[in-house]
Amino acid sequence: MANSFGHILTLTSFGESHGPSVGAVLDGLPAGILIDEQQIQKELDRRKPGQSTISSPRKEEDKFEIISGVFEGKSTGAPICILIPNTNQKSSDYEHLKTIYRPGHADFVYDKKYGIRDYRGGGRSSARITAAWVAAGAIAKTYLTQTFNLKIQSIVSSIYNIEMDSPFSYPDWENAENNIVRCPDVNIAAQMIMAVEQAKTEGDSLGGIISTRVLNCPVGFGEPLFDKLNAELAKAMFSINAVKGVEFGLGFKSSKLKGSENNDSPDKNSNHDGGITGGISNGKHIEFNIAFKPVSSISIEQQVLNTSNEIETLSIKGRHDSCILPRAVPITEAMTALVIADHALLNLKYVGNMT
Amino acid sequence: MANSFGHILTLTSFGESHGPSVGAVLDGLPAGILIDEQQIQKELDRRKPGQSTISSPRKEEDKFEIISGVFEGKSTGAPICILIPNTNQKSSDYEHLKTIYRPGHADFVYDKKYGIRDYRGGGRSSARITAAWVAAGAIAKTYLTQTFNLKIQSIVSSIYNIEMDSPFSYPDWENAENNIVRCPDVNIAAQMIMAVEQAKTEGDSLGGIISTRVLNCPVGFGEPLFDKLNAELAKAMFSINAVKGVEFGLGFKSSKLKGSENNDSPDKNSNHDGGITGGISNGKHIEFNIAFKPVSSISIEQQVLNTSNEIETLSIKGRHDSCILPRAVPITEAMTALVIADHALLNLKYVGNMT
Amino acid sequence: MANSFGHILTLTSFGESHGPSVGAVLDGLPAGILIDEQQIQKELDRRKPGQSTISSPRKEEDKFEIISGVFEGKSTGAPICILIPNTNQKSSDYEHLKTIYRPGHADFVYDKKYGIRDYRGGGRSSARITAAWVAAGAIAKTYLTQTFNLKIQSIVSSIYNIEMDSPFSYPDWENAENNIVRCPDVNIAAQMIMAVEQAKTEGDSLGGIISTRVLNCPVGFGEPLFDKLNAELAKAMFSINAVKGVEFGLGFKSSKLKGSENNDSPDKNSNHDGGITGGISNGKHIEFNIAFKPVSSISIEQQVLNTSNEIETLSIKGRHDSCILPRAVPITEAMTALVIADHALLNLKYVGNMT
Amino acid sequence: MANSFGHILTLTSFGESHGPSVGAVLDGLPAGILIDEQQIQKELDRRKPGQSTISSPRKEEDKFEIISGVFEGKSTGAPICILIPNTNQKSSDYEHLKTIYRPGHADFVYDKKYGIRDYRGGGRSSARITAAWVAAGAIAKTYLTQTFNLKIQSIVSSIYNIEMDSPFSYPDWENAENNIVRCPDVNIAAQMIMAVEQAKTEGDSLGGIISTRVLNCPVGFGEPLFDKLNAELAKAMFSINAVKGVEFGLGFKSSKLKGSENNDSPDKNSNHDGGITGGISNGKHIEFNIAFKPVSSISIEQQVLNTSNEIETLSIKGRHDSCILPRAVPITEAMTALVIADHALLNLKYVGNMT
Repeated sequence: MANSFGHILTLTSFGESHGPSVGAVLDGLPAGILIDEQQIQKELDRRKPGQSTISSPRKEEDKFEIISGVFEGKSTGAPICILIPNTNQKSSDYEHLKTIYRPGHADFVYDKKYGIRDYRGGGRSSARITAAWVAAGAIAKTYLTQTFNLKIQSIVSSIYNIEMDSPFSYPDWENAENNIVRCPDVNIAAQMIMAVEQAKTEGDSLGGIISTRVLNCPVGFGEPLFDKLNAELAKAMFSINAVKGVEFGLGFKSSKLKGSENNDSPDKNSNHDGGITGGISNGKHIEFNIAFKPVSSISIEQQVLNTSNEIETLSIKGRHDSCILPRAVPITEAMTALVIADHALLNLKYVGNMT
Repeated sequence: MANSFGHILTLTSFGESHGPSVGAVLDGLPAGILIDEQQIQKELDRRKPGQSTISSPRKEEDKFEIISGVFEGKSTGAPICILIPNTNQKSSDYEHLKTIYRPGHADFVYDKKYGIRDYRGGGRSSARITAAWVAAGAIAKTYLTQTFNLKIQSIVSSIYNIEMDSPFSYPDWENAENNIVRCPDVNIAAQMIMAVEQAKTEGDSLGGIISTRVLNCPVGFGEPLFDKLNAELAKAMFSINAVKGVEFGLGFKSSKLKGSENNDSPDKNSNHDGGITGGISNGKHIEFNIAFKPVSSISIEQQVLNTSNEIETLSIKGRHDSCILPRAVPITEAMTALVIADHALLNLKYVGNMT
Repeated sequence: MANSFGHILTLTSFGESHGPSVGAVLDGLPAGILIDEQQIQKELDRRKPGQSTISSPRKEEDKFEIISGVFEGKSTGAPICILIPNTNQKSSDYEHLKTIYRPGHADFVYDKKYGIRDYRGGGRSSARITAAWVAAGAIAKTYLTQTFNLKIQSIVSSIYNIEMDSPFSYPDWENAENNIVRCPDVNIAAQMIMAVEQAKTEGDSLGGIISTRVLNCPVGFGEPLFDKLNAELAKAMFSINAVKGVEFGLGFKSSKLKGSENNDSPDKNSNHDGGITGGISNGKHIEFNIAFKPVSSISIEQQVLNTSNEIETLSIKGRHDSCILPRAVPITEAMTALVIADHALLNLKYVGNMT
Repeated sequence: MANSFGHILTLTSFGESHGPSVGAVLDGLPAGILIDEQQIQKELDRRKPGQSTISSPRKEEDKFEIISGVFEGKSTGAPICILIPNTNQKSSDYEHLKTIYRPGHADFVYDKKYGIRDYRGGGRSSARITAAWVAAGAIAKTYLTQTFNLKIQSIVSSIYNIEMDSPFSYPDWENAENNIVRCPDVNIAAQMIMAVEQAKTEGDSLGGIISTRVLNCPVGFGEPLFDKLNAELAKAMFSINAVKGVEFGLGFKSSKLKGSENNDSPDKNSNHDGGITGGISNGKHIEFNIAFKPVSSISIEQQVLNTSNEIETLSIKGRHDSCILPRAVPITEAMTALVIADHALLNLKYVGNMT
């Protein structure tokens, strides 16, 4: 079930970038949940290409269709299938990549593993398939908001060498949606935009960090031993292409501290653990960072292997993002929402005990 | 199935630190695999307390018993149950913690989630239960060595502010087993030991980083989309208490790079991706780091909450490790082995295609 | 994952009878398997309504579309999504059922469980959703034929009080496809057809038995303890609406025998166990029967409960089958194929041992 | 996870008849459930050998030990491991079977599948391992009784050619525990006992039918599509050795009826469907039958294959039951309890809707 994710609330993903549609089946949502189609579209619009000067100039409308599981505007308890047609594929863009193993992409490993590869735009490994995750995640978000008043927010806290000092202390995360890099600090955002435009001019790409927080998560979500909430979130995050690191609370910084420094004090605002202790939400904000490597597709010339195991020079000419992070913000939120909603449902047997 | 891990090869964990035994059921191992009891004991000895001056002075023999699934020294294909008796519990050590929520521990969240808590030594949340993982992991290691000549090694690359410069470039990882902190660089190791002893004297504790590499992993392990090899390894790592971050290859550093810097070149030694691309092993060494926060139990006085929601002063007097990393090395290896072996079995349908 | 079935090869079902499409995602099929679209259509045609004088006069073309997972005629290892549009819904046929709980249908339990119900044609509980199972099963069949020369056949061996004496001894099962009831014995088939036509005239319906055999199944398929091949097949069979009983080999008859009578002799043709011993295929034909209750929708007047818990008189006027068994033959084969293919893949780790 | 069963409440089984213990891990039970050790022992005593003149003369005390998951008499939410030592193995009894494939047993298929076989008393395929299921099932029963006042009862309704006319109409099922065949009808029971004693004298064995009913099951248990309550119960039943058939309500008899005869009327006592419609409990008694083939081990001489593929004459001399059904009654109840409890937990998200 390698293309399914979750225990009670499960997402099954299907589709390739150059087939007729990408899609997902969301199973296990309780019946009677309002399905807000405008909200779904709004999330898809946050992810779609061509939304700003720094994202890929591809134009995908990313209109979705719900095939099943909704009756008179509400979930029925049956699986919800969402289809998002692919409308702007240019397969010819990829013809020259048929015999090339692009660095950082799945080309080589897919060929070796499967012995067959849809080389058009990454095929199954394309980030395009995350569009359906975002649609499903929008439904999970609605469920969490309706049920717990729970809120999930992701921001871009770092691009290349430009970073917010202490993103989780920054007061107004809402600002993030007001600029094209989705960083709430206006000054940092301006520097980030310049850096991305510079990289675009150079034909290069930039990585960065997305910070996520979950507000109003009840105490008790997360299943020890192996389905700890942080473990499940980490797995979800590494499902996103280009993610190379995940850390909760102080994360790697805590490895440089003493216990007396790192232990959270009884103060409500002390949150070095990032809202999860022993794998279970502790009632504070859940806080984590994920690191993205820079987009692998660059137009700067690079040495690459081809399918005959020879070295070639490649300059990738497709319509690629120079920095994927702003578009990855809604994907991060969607996967977070799916994990949290799944654990909300797993936790029902303890709901009487939860504060 | 929150206490089970894996798809084909599954580990089901049970037991508490102060019950009669901790244990595990390893299901799905092919029949006919040699079960090397000496090797299992050797791994358990690497994890056991009291093995050096810097680890907990508790004395647990950690002798194991195989209850099932082995006949005449070989696996039969039936589930292998391993029991490790608890021989050195001092429940009275924990009586004073009955009404205390220790910071950084699962005390608070278990009480809130379950409404009942075995307060003796952490109960289910105790790291003692990882003894059974190590035993199961030893079997997975044997399977991987026999089948692929695959080798898994973990080292301590950082403790507190003392760190190896570039652990994956360090030539001789074998050295790590020659000192009590399990760092292969003798000079760094000496500094680490001093730091841990200093912390012990202060009643404090230290965090750090464990680096792991997997040698001779065939191309093709890992299942896109959601069971990517890195996603599965990350989930396994976050199952280990105190782990706060996981990164593959350049990890968080790659977020500070340009695509032209970060993309791997055709050179065999270029391994910024850490041996996994698109969620699938690419034939290079798999390389990842995990960050541990410092041990939460310290004898330095700290302010804590009690079960009546009042603040108390606590000094934890138990027999705790000042730095858990050396003992976590075999745990890290064991969980890595379980993930890789599971994916080796998942990959059997493509074995004809693998190089 | 209540709408998913299987371990390695998984079917995720979605759709309702009166939505835009029904569909399925088949995940886990190895790459490189030929996808024979004609074969898929042929199986769909065996299931579709209106195929003979005794089946529902509804006209559904049951044309399918493959959305993903196939490239240049072969499976890629990515999930295969199949859509089958609903083209002949008459929702108005069902308006009068909005407040009725039809006996034998899921109306009452869906209302009570979900608090919301798509009353149009059964919605999610409609047998229409099995069209997508049949398409997926056709792919599984191709895989099994290509890999093992394995063959799955189902026949109608009993309708109402007309039954074949000993269906598994009957020599020529191929005949079944030559008549509209899919019974290989021409004389019995003629009587069955008369009985069904008589029931149709009366506005009544008939039940019956489908017998299935699997030829050339290798020794070794089936996973003790809980995923025994018979247990998995039984679960699959009870997933089909209207199935009320499942038996393997001599089945219920064996309960009336002595051990000395029932034990299979070394004779190759002795197959009282029905090809499965200890939950594992033993190399003989796998043989099992499934009992269908008569179709619940009849136009004869019956007393029923309505949503106000009052008794009403109902005569169901829709375009229903008087006997569903002939159309259930390809469904039975499809679910059998999915189970066997899944276990073929689960068994890969023992393939060296299999005869 | 072939040795695990269930979704939320899972049973992982381990052990062989001639190892130190058989056991099980029950995971997913909510915290705070009373664990009644006397009740567990009582159920084990109903299953144990040597309990009457017609069961195997082997003497197993079947004392159990709870290793984990219980604190001060209540479940903690952690996995409950139960061990039952094997105290009366006589491995030498089986030495002569080392090269024999006993008919009806798993000997042949285990050898072919695994290439290695613990030939002592069936090893993993021994019915002895069900002792741990019975212990776990006793806990599930307690949970269901405490939570829903739900009651599960199994009786022996048929042995060989002696059968109750209409077991589900029989008024007093409680009588079943008053005689050694566990049939509630005293006269039928007397005939059954005579038949079993006759078979024992002849060195032969007898099959039969166990009927089970579930009282006070709430409406709404069961998950369409593939985890229908009947499908899950059927899978559980076929996990029991020697079960060859399962039917719900009228079962195979309904295949001989017309829809007008078979449809349940609004009368509360009309229960042809056996308490499950559309895969979901409908609030009536759940009623089903399972057919057992006669015990395969008989002392009457029979022709068998040996491991060299030659025919030998075998007379099995071990201490076997001539009719297993009375001892299978608690096993049937235990597996039923585990399925129902699992679905009670799965259904929590709809608990507000349930009547």
